[in-house]
Amino acid sequence: MKKISLLGATGSIGLQTIDILLSHPDQFKLVAFSAGKNIDKTKEIINQLQPELVSVQDEKDAVELQKQYPTIHFTSGTKGLVDVATHPDSTVLLNAVLGSIGLEATLAAIRLGKTIAIANKETLVTAGHIVMAEAEKYNVPILPVDSEHSAVFQSMNGENRKQVKRIILTASGGSFRDKTREELSHVTVKDALNHPNWSMGAKITIDSATMMNKGLEVIEAHVLFNMPYDNIDVLLHKESIIHSLVEYDDTSVIAQLGTPDMRVPIQYALSYPDRLQVNNSERLNLAQIGQLHFKEVDFDRFRALKLAYQAGRTGGTILTAMNAANEAAVSLFLQGKIAFLQIEDVIENIMNAHSNILMPDLETILHVDSETRKTVLSMVK
Amino acid sequence: MKKISLLGATGSIGLQTIDILLSHPDQFKLVAFSAGKNIDKTKEIINQLQPELVSVQDEKDAVELQKQYPTIHFTSGTKGLVDVATHPDSTVLLNAVLGSIGLEATLAAIRLGKTIAIANKETLVTAGHIVMAEAEKYNVPILPVDSEHSAVFQSMNGENRKQVKRIILTASGGSFRDKTREELSHVTVKDALNHPNWSMGAKITIDSATMMNKGLEVIEAHVLFNMPYDNIDVLLHKESIIHSLVEYDDTSVIAQLGTPDMRVPIQYALSYPDRLQVNNSERLNLAQIGQLHFKEVDFDRFRALKLAYQAGRTGGTILTAMNAANEAAVSLFLQGKIAFLQIEDVIENIMNAHSNILMPDLETILHVDSETRKTVLSMVK
Repeated sequence: MKKISLLGATGSIGLQTIDILLSHPDQFKLVAFSAGKNIDKTKEIINQLQPELVSVQDEKDAVELQKQYPTIHFTSGTKGLVDVATHPDSTVLLNAVLGSIGLEATLAAIRLGKTIAIANKETLVTAGHIVMAEAEKYNVPILPVDSEHSAVFQSMNGENRKQVKRIILTASGGSFRDKTREELSHVTVKDALNHPNWSMGAKITIDSATMMNKGLEVIEAHVLFNMPYDNIDVLLHKESIIHSLVEYDDTSVIAQLGTPDMRVPIQYALSYPDRLQVNNSERLNLAQIGQLHFKEVDFDRFRALKLAYQAGRTGGTILTAMNAANEAAVSLFLQGKIAFLQIEDVIENIMNAHSNILMPDLETILHVDSETRKTVLSMVK
Repeated sequence: MKKISLLGATGSIGLQTIDILLSHPDQFKLVAFSAGKNIDKTKEIINQLQPELVSVQDEKDAVELQKQYPTIHFTSGTKGLVDVATHPDSTVLLNAVLGSIGLEATLAAIRLGKTIAIANKETLVTAGHIVMAEAEKYNVPILPVDSEHSAVFQSMNGENRKQVKRIILTASGGSFRDKTREELSHVTVKDALNHPNWSMGAKITIDSATMMNKGLEVIEAHVLFNMPYDNIDVLLHKESIIHSLVEYDDTSVIAQLGTPDMRVPIQYALSYPDRLQVNNSERLNLAQIGQLHFKEVDFDRFRALKLAYQAGRTGGTILTAMNAANEAAVSLFLQGKIAFLQIEDVIENIMNAHSNILMPDLETILHVDSETRKTVLSMVK
């Protein structure tokens, strides 16, 4: 029985995690979770899984919930995330919150020796050097939850990592993969949220359309698998059936494939090294699919991906600046305040103006993060 | 340094093995090999790799060679194969002879605790129950050399085999994959030898065209991976890029991919668990390939595959009868004595007339093998 702390239970990854925990009550026990402002969902999860500790975003919600569930401990805010991550009974932390807010909680869990299942890209993108150094120090495994990194991780099972030549991350190309840059200038929020293959949260769906999502994944792969950027490729593969590939010294390529179902990589991070049945997950039928397509990625068409490689190769606080600029710009786009292509403009402007600091500490990262967001907001006033 | 015995050095797999041994003199040493009647090639290999023992098919060739190379030991015939396989210095036997002739030598090597790299399908098809039982008894690994089984083996690296749900062997469909059965009645030997993807020996190229090759591979997979026939599928995949796939309980599918180069799986069987560079092997470029195609296999179109599944599910000497009938029929086809579709007729007639013995011993297998060949030859008189 693995005892789980879950950050971000009411988000897309969080709810799919809850589905997994419900289907394997003999394997997993949810001891603590955090939610945001969705109190109905929070109550539903409490009723289904009876955790010991729950954190919500606002203190007043925590106070209200405490009255209704006197036997459960409630907490709130950033401190609440750390409380959930460091709950003494849990051995695994699944971090599925969005944004850099998950960083401190992850580090606190690592220092208590908990296994980390990481769906929070920003933690690795902005503070990868800190997280991986701490994970090594405390001998803690960092298990990927993202389908691409899970595929890479699975394709390295039982292999000697020194014999890896190249990581190939596949990319569906997102909602706008067939549009030219010209056409991109007119797209709406609604168009952008219509991802062809995966059902995901709004922010990541926009990131897929700009391909900043793939850019963040390239950086994440660099951090997780200690692989130089020159040995990480992105391959357009519109069906999202091959989730990613690893090439070895002998030219052999190992890949992980499957129908697009996020529960598979989420569950794998929890069940690793075992594999359990995934409730109602559709089995892959390649004969029925018939064809798989592959195309080189065009870095001029997908400018955000180019910027991400550039920030990755530079390293330091420019990664935080890029990520914060992207988060803020996506938020502005979702609010209808900027156009789709302006997301890239914002990121590029921020990166060009950034005074980079290499190997930043946590405080510096959090400072650059909040300053960058402010700068982006001031841009559109 | 691994010390290698090689059976079948002058065949297609054998020569590619020699190429590998030449390119990694620091990793591998050829201590003994067998050849057939190609004495020029035999001398070339002797000069290149300086083995201690060489076996050729005919005794007079052995006598002649002994005069020319007084410091090397020569032997011949079936006994010679056993001499090579059991050479005291070798720790690995790569069995790449064609046909059931390799069986006794393989068993002798297993009983001396040598690791077996097996390219000789017939050994596993006709005597799989004996070979695997002996391998278990002497705790000897049986490593596949065939690209499909190597792919399956690689896709099971680091995995719990109890969590394997299905093995999916890919099939190019061979030289005639786009022809109807109608059109197959007119094909020539030359047409049949023109395989679209792989450069292989004549017998296996014909087996690819009838898909008996895939049938033998299904049986081999059953034996090697202890997998029920209902959990072994064949998938048409004309590009031969995905070499095979393994599906797990969680719906994840792991696959091994690469350009069609037999040296990769041959070398892997020798270097396992490590991976070494393969001299001049072309790296996979999926973007350049663009598309991969998949299709369900039609068992009426590929009747030999249906017969192989049938023999596999039955088990016993019918496997030997089927294999011997196929070998004899392919030989007759290559000599222009029967038509292409008659290969299947011969196999089916032999199978229908066969009195099956389950769990046969080696003597029975060899008896059924030679009797079946005689029967097939008598059919065409």
